[in-house]
Amino acid sequence: MKKLEQLYEGKAKKVFATDDPDLVIVDYKDDATAFNGAKKGTIVGKGVINNKLTNYLMQQLEKEGVPTHFVEEISDRETVVKKVTIVPLEVIIRNISAGSFAKRYGVEEGIVFKAPTVEFSYKSDPLDDPLLNHYHALALGLATQEEIDQIIAMAFKVNDVLKAFFAEVGVTLVDFKLEFGKTSDGKIVLADEISPDTCRLWDSKTGEKLDKDRFRRDMGGVEDAYQEIMRRVFGK
Amino acid sequence: MKKLEQLYEGKAKKVFATDDPDLVIVDYKDDATAFNGAKKGTIVGKGVINNKLTNYLMQQLEKEGVPTHFVEEISDRETVVKKVTIVPLEVIIRNISAGSFAKRYGVEEGIVFKAPTVEFSYKSDPLDDPLLNHYHALALGLATQEEIDQIIAMAFKVNDVLKAFFAEVGVTLVDFKLEFGKTSDGKIVLADEISPDTCRLWDSKTGEKLDKDRFRRDMGGVEDAYQEIMRRVFGK
Repeated sequence: MKKLEQLYEGKAKKVFATDDPDLVIVDYKDDATAFNGAKKGTIVGKGVINNKLTNYLMQQLEKEGVPTHFVEEISDRETVVKKVTIVPLEVIIRNISAGSFAKRYGVEEGIVFKAPTVEFSYKSDPLDDPLLNHYHALALGLATQEEIDQIIAMAFKVNDVLKAFFAEVGVTLVDFKLEFGKTSDGKIVLADEISPDTCRLWDSKTGEKLDKDRFRRDMGGVEDAYQEIMRRVFGK
Repeated sequence: MKKLEQLYEGKAKKVFATDDPDLVIVDYKDDATAFNGAKKGTIVGKGVINNKLTNYLMQQLEKEGVPTHFVEEISDRETVVKKVTIVPLEVIIRNISAGSFAKRYGVEEGIVFKAPTVEFSYKSDPLDDPLLNHYHALALGLATQEEIDQIIAMAFKVNDVLKAFFAEVGVTLVDFKLEFGKTSDGKIVLADEISPDTCRLWDSKTGEKLDKDRFRRDMGGVEDAYQEIMRRVFGK
């Protein structure tokens, strides 16, 4: 397979065309941003970690029946994935209060919910990814009812699998963001990444943050946290 | 029935105890606020109009099977209602894009939705009434699943009744906010008010705004707009 022209550069990844119209190559960067790009920096080695973690977790999810865009890891930072049209909804699952939830609703971080919550944000940098519900998504024509039902069911399934997986390696899955895409044949698959950039991961014993909040909140030890997650997952 | 001590003063209404523990008296003020109290003013005669309109519309809704808190109008500005515990969710139904929806999602006003949307805001002045979905409401313990299902069904029913009612008098019901309360025996009923303070109402022919947006947006003709709605509804 040939890596052809760059199609897109996002905040944390570049996407390249290939000679197969249904496949693209994702290239993970070390660039880190937060607060919709207002804060910028570098997390050395992040690209390699997020590439390997995402691919490993997506393969676990595939085994559990969750379809993903993953095809093949071709280098430390590069992976072949199915070409998809991204559904313009960020799908956030929360098991424990933290981050924007705690701030928005005036509650402390760390409240364990009886049942996980799911929420959508409209993927739009100029609008600052506003929260929206499924009625809004339908009214704006962002997805169909069937797609929304499918996405919610898949997101909860991903939560079940990942929560159990991380618990085994002493990590609490607090919340995470997913993106879904539609393949050329109209199938909804899990896309984007699953990494300490997109998940809140707390050490189950100490509560120590092992995710991008260390970068967002200038806590130091950012690289160490990402590497610790790698060690837990691959040292298992 | 005796009007006893004031229990509560809100932005647009006062609530008084009575000698019946299950009943209170609502007293409508002419005070107008917008943007969570940041803008303040007076709309002369508003209290009388909103009292009479709300009572009339709630009686229409009762006839259509929607339980409300309405008991009896006792003066131009005063009404006896059932004492309820307000469910801390503002319930907003939208038929056409406008206001915060248009701003939040970067679309123009006036887009007619294929189906109405419903959304919840968490009633909290310090938090600026943040949007939340039913998963959040459950996680925060603001209502039960059964109550939420009931509230959504009632809100859509209110929309059907009011949309048809206003259409008959040449007014387009764009969107509106409802509040629900729980009576002493645990029943969910429609509470608060239904008025140009809480509904967006556009003249069906000219598109002229006949609601609080005239106050919010300094458009002038505020009192005239409220009186025009009165004339349409009661002149019918």
